[in-house]
Amino acid sequence: MNLRIGQGYDVHKLAAGYEFWLGGILIPYELGSVGHSDGDVLIHAICDAILGAACLRDIGYHFPDTDNAYKNIDSKILLQDTLELIKKEGYYINNIDATVCLQKPKVKDYIPKMRDVLAEILEIDKNTLSIKATTTEQLGFVGRREGVEAHAVVLLIKE
Amino acid sequence: MNLRIGQGYDVHKLAAGYEFWLGGILIPYELGSVGHSDGDVLIHAICDAILGAACLRDIGYHFPDTDNAYKNIDSKILLQDTLELIKKEGYYINNIDATVCLQKPKVKDYIPKMRDVLAEILEIDKNTLSIKATTTEQLGFVGRREGVEAHAVVLLIKE
Amino acid sequence: MNLRIGQGYDVHKLAAGYEFWLGGILIPYELGSVGHSDGDVLIHAICDAILGAACLRDIGYHFPDTDNAYKNIDSKILLQDTLELIKKEGYYINNIDATVCLQKPKVKDYIPKMRDVLAEILEIDKNTLSIKATTTEQLGFVGRREGVEAHAVVLLIKE
Ligand SMILES: [Zn+2]
Ligand SMILES: [Zn+2]
Ligand SMILES: [Zn+2]
Repeated sequence: MNLRIGQGYDVHKLAAGYEFWLGGILIPYELGSVGHSDGDVLIHAICDAILGAACLRDIGYHFPDTDNAYKNIDSKILLQDTLELIKKEGYYINNIDATVCLQKPKVKDYIPKMRDVLAEILEIDKNTLSIKATTTEQLGFVGRREGVEAHAVVLLIKE
Repeated sequence: MNLRIGQGYDVHKLAAGYEFWLGGILIPYELGSVGHSDGDVLIHAICDAILGAACLRDIGYHFPDTDNAYKNIDSKILLQDTLELIKKEGYYINNIDATVCLQKPKVKDYIPKMRDVLAEILEIDKNTLSIKATTTEQLGFVGRREGVEAHAVVLLIKE
Repeated sequence: MNLRIGQGYDVHKLAAGYEFWLGGILIPYELGSVGHSDGDVLIHAICDAILGAACLRDIGYHFPDTDNAYKNIDSKILLQDTLELIKKEGYYINNIDATVCLQKPKVKDYIPKMRDVLAEILEIDKNTLSIKATTTEQLGFVGRREGVEAHAVVLLIKE
């Protein structure tokens, strides 16, 4: 059994006039996530963890924000593409754990839906995909609601 | 062998007039950790890593800061409760590694005691529970001593 | 098989008049990394992840910034020393994944060289050492180019 650990970290600005995509779903909120893509910080952190575990560079390498092909793209497509990249190498996902850090809004009630959506794309049981949420207690750029960040870890296996 | 990876991240404000609980012990310091509970950022990050690995939501889900039952609670009780939650699912802890980020005070000499206290609660050998410390070189909210943060990872096993 | 997970996090200030060592190589840039050692934030995060996984304290414990022996030291020596510490315990490195967070410069093209340098020191295949990079979208101390930070995870094995 061939195990590989990976981690991801991503940040996006929050601003009025943007949609707030998080974990593959649209969250009703007065601010949205700014990005070349749809700015889904949680999917991006998960993509980076998966790519890192497989030693396949990072999300910026595969899906550069200078490429018009990825302008306003739905990050669920990037997640699907990431899965294809590791499947080519013979890896599958053992489990994922992630935390999204944001001061507002409360996302607790949206997490089951995020897990459904992302687990289906990743072709894994939703009980191997954990999403957590925390505030930063009004501290830093997350606490000032200037941005949102996400951390993720993943364990891949190649039999 | 069924392995699960998890990660946790937590932040608390530092302020005068509060006790500074960290890693289950009371640290003598002019500032303390603000929270609905005792504000033990290191225990909270570890709880979240354990819950995330077992895909059992997060610390805010199980011990909400809107619930008076957890007002000023000793976080060691939350850690004990977290262990019970994963034991019910058949998991045990393989090892834990964590980092606390704080500008002051130096906690190096307190770490052996923290490891003793937390390892006993978690029913693991203290050589499978690592606690590290770093400053952020005066940068950000940690560097300005406005807050303290902690990162943790865990590996769970179900035989 | 005895598995151990570890994580590391490090921060250094950026300032004019310093060299910018990152991932074991010198990056041409108008700012450099400030530290007691050469300030290589990526190597330090990796050292801490390795030490944490082996439950061998942290980089500040083994190589204190109050010790003149480590003044301006090449962090590659610290990485080599870290490897020796875990080899004494019978551990070897399964894989490493890390992310460096910096607003500028673009380091994408330097990553293959960093992986070559670090994998050779660590006596591992470079396809088990992943380095990723991200900006923080102009947010926080990284976004303001006041500092650079790095996250790392590692999986160690003892047969
Ligand atoms: Zn992103
Ligand atoms: Zn907390
Ligand atoms: Zn350092």
